Amino acid sequence: MDALIDVPAGLNNVAVADTEIGSVDGDAGFYHYRQYDAVGLARTRSLEDVWCLLDTGALPDAGAPAFAVDRTVPAELDGLIAAVAATSAAPLAQLRTVLSAAAPALELVPMLDLTDAERRLQARRLAAVVPGILARLYRRAHGLPVVTADVAAGHAAAYLHAVTGAAPSAAHARALEQYLILTVDHGFNASTFTGRVVASTGADLADVVCSAIGALAGPLHGGAPSRALDALDVIGTPDRAADWVRGEIDAGRRIMGFGHAVYRAPDPRSALLRDVAEALGGPLVERAIAIETEILTTLAELKPDRPLPSNVEFYAGVIMATVGLPREMFTPTFAVSRVIGWVTHAVEQAAAAKLIRPSAHYVGPTPERPLVTA
Amino acid sequence: MDALIDVPAGLNNVAVADTEIGSVDGDAGFYHYRQYDAVGLARTRSLEDVWCLLDTGALPDAGAPAFAVDRTVPAELDGLIAAVAATSAAPLAQLRTVLSAAAPALELVPMLDLTDAERRLQARRLAAVVPGILARLYRRAHGLPVVTADVAAGHAAAYLHAVTGAAPSAAHARALEQYLILTVDHGFNASTFTGRVVASTGADLADVVCSAIGALAGPLHGGAPSRALDALDVIGTPDRAADWVRGEIDAGRRIMGFGHAVYRAPDPRSALLRDVAEALGGPLVERAIAIETEILTTLAELKPDRPLPSNVEFYAGVIMATVGLPREMFTPTFAVSRVIGWVTHAVEQAAAAKLIRPSAHYVGPTPERPLVTA
Repeated sequence: MDALIDVPAGLNNVAVADTEIGSVDGDAGFYHYRQYDAVGLARTRSLEDVWCLLDTGALPDAGAPAFAVDRTVPAELDGLIAAVAATSAAPLAQLRTVLSAAAPALELVPMLDLTDAERRLQARRLAAVVPGILARLYRRAHGLPVVTADVAAGHAAAYLHAVTGAAPSAAHARALEQYLILTVDHGFNASTFTGRVVASTGADLADVVCSAIGALAGPLHGGAPSRALDALDVIGTPDRAADWVRGEIDAGRRIMGFGHAVYRAPDPRSALLRDVAEALGGPLVERAIAIETEILTTLAELKPDRPLPSNVEFYAGVIMATVGLPREMFTPTFAVSRVIGWVTHAVEQAAAAKLIRPSAHYVGPTPERPLVTA
Repeated sequence: MDALIDVPAGLNNVAVADTEIGSVDGDAGFYHYRQYDAVGLARTRSLEDVWCLLDTGALPDAGAPAFAVDRTVPAELDGLIAAVAATSAAPLAQLRTVLSAAAPALELVPMLDLTDAERRLQARRLAAVVPGILARLYRRAHGLPVVTADVAAGHAAAYLHAVTGAAPSAAHARALEQYLILTVDHGFNASTFTGRVVASTGADLADVVCSAIGALAGPLHGGAPSRALDALDVIGTPDRAADWVRGEIDAGRRIMGFGHAVYRAPDPRSALLRDVAEALGGPLVERAIAIETEILTTLAELKPDRPLPSNVEFYAGVIMATVGLPREMFTPTFAVSRVIGWVTHAVEQAAAAKLIRPSAHYVGPTPERPLVTA
């Protein structure tokens, strides 16, 4: 048997693939999609432009028609959506439940049997249908009528409209869009890597996305903007923030919304989201900014050796609440953008046509061969 | 940024974890569960004994009560099962769809929040419910009444009873049980590894299993016993096998049921399954044995440098057909046993409490930093 190759636990810093999609420089506090600074894209571009960049490798030409996505939820999924909305599963699990059965309705087939161009079309269709499914699940679960935005609306605005039932203001739609752009992709995190392992088997894109959602559901994956907002509720007013942080640290708990596995420099997403939140304004935003300052000061005192800057969670929750998204939809909303990254990675991995099948050190009792039969 | 560590594509021979569950020696044609030869276990033990071994690390003591599993499908899943059975999704995707929403009914919570003992209890419950869900989906999809085997029946017999609607003969139940024992676990294949990545996020066991199913659905993962049986149908009689093999090889296609990514020696599962099939007997078995001989002879002529022994697929399909399982249930039946391996790996991975988050080489155009804004 070939000798095993040892690598660090958790595969940290292990280059498991070549990618042209982007990367994260945690020390510099910088990440990019293709050749563009992701934060710059979120400041200046639409989600459709960034989606086009991920899909085709290039931003659309000036004056070109917008990148076209078909957001229509197939009618044949209506019965399943109603049944799933009636379960007590979490919204993210409900999304997976619908996608798990959606391959026939979306005409998804194993990527092994497709060309690269066909895979990209299927990727676009699958990612485009996620917001509509989420909105239907939410509204059915709450006994609200299904609402569909005008096809001319941008992807972010259409999602917000479909969830809340009302056409959003331009400022609200743009704030959400900027959050979505910032969270489209972020290196080989656990959900993206899970999707790539599944894509390496030649499976279809619903298989890829259902699997990635499983990893996203894990509390160690990171994102849970609702927890950061829950903390703001518990803290209440800025003058109570320092005592709250001390209590949490004394109890050995992590402060949700602060610190990140990859970034040692400030999370570049957090800085822009703070700007976006400030532009939105309102009492929640003002309170969040004041409390953030207190938390950072207290964390710097308590953990001087470990920088714990605000991460993407903190202002993401504040923005989503301000634009009118219900708290239960915060984590699913992350899937609205990240699914674009997942399918882009899946298409890239499928092109490699190489099964990911690692090995392991067996460290249990020495096996008998052949078995001494009972 | 720390230097990246290069590894072979597909992570082949990369030891991504320490495990006490088992391993595969492809050169020797040997694999084991804990310290026991897996083939020996399948010859001499019940599925419940092997399940106990995986779960607890030890075979049950002589005279001890059988390893207890609760196979009851929660009634609150009935509505969802009916809705899912009405979709046109593949049976394996239907299983995932139900499991995706099953966490509340099975009281599954994120593994991060559980002790090892609690995780093992949840693992046992989730794996135990898979056959009943599959059988209900199958019978509802075909307009047949739901049938439930006696609780005293063995796991394999109960599954066969629930799918076919009739109590199986002891010989049929034992043949299926031996197939299930042989396929409980098999190293760090793509689905098991996918499940471990998801488990590393602290997610719940439904997340783990839904993700693993996505990888299992991929055509490059390997198993599709129905394809081997489809080939037997096309070939018809043994005298036509050589010409059929030549045609497939000329057309550049792989011969399903022959060859394996890991085994260079004969697949040890195949030899026992052949014995099991021979013991069952019948016209399909006799035809399969004669055709296998012809295929092996022709493959040895055409591919003298690449050994392509029969793999687990070939006789698995023959056995499942002989005991009365419908062909559409062959791949889902693989999940009946492999889910036991998946959850065992997930519990082991969760104990490591270390997120799997690899890295990658960015090989696209050099990113601008900061972005030259448009």
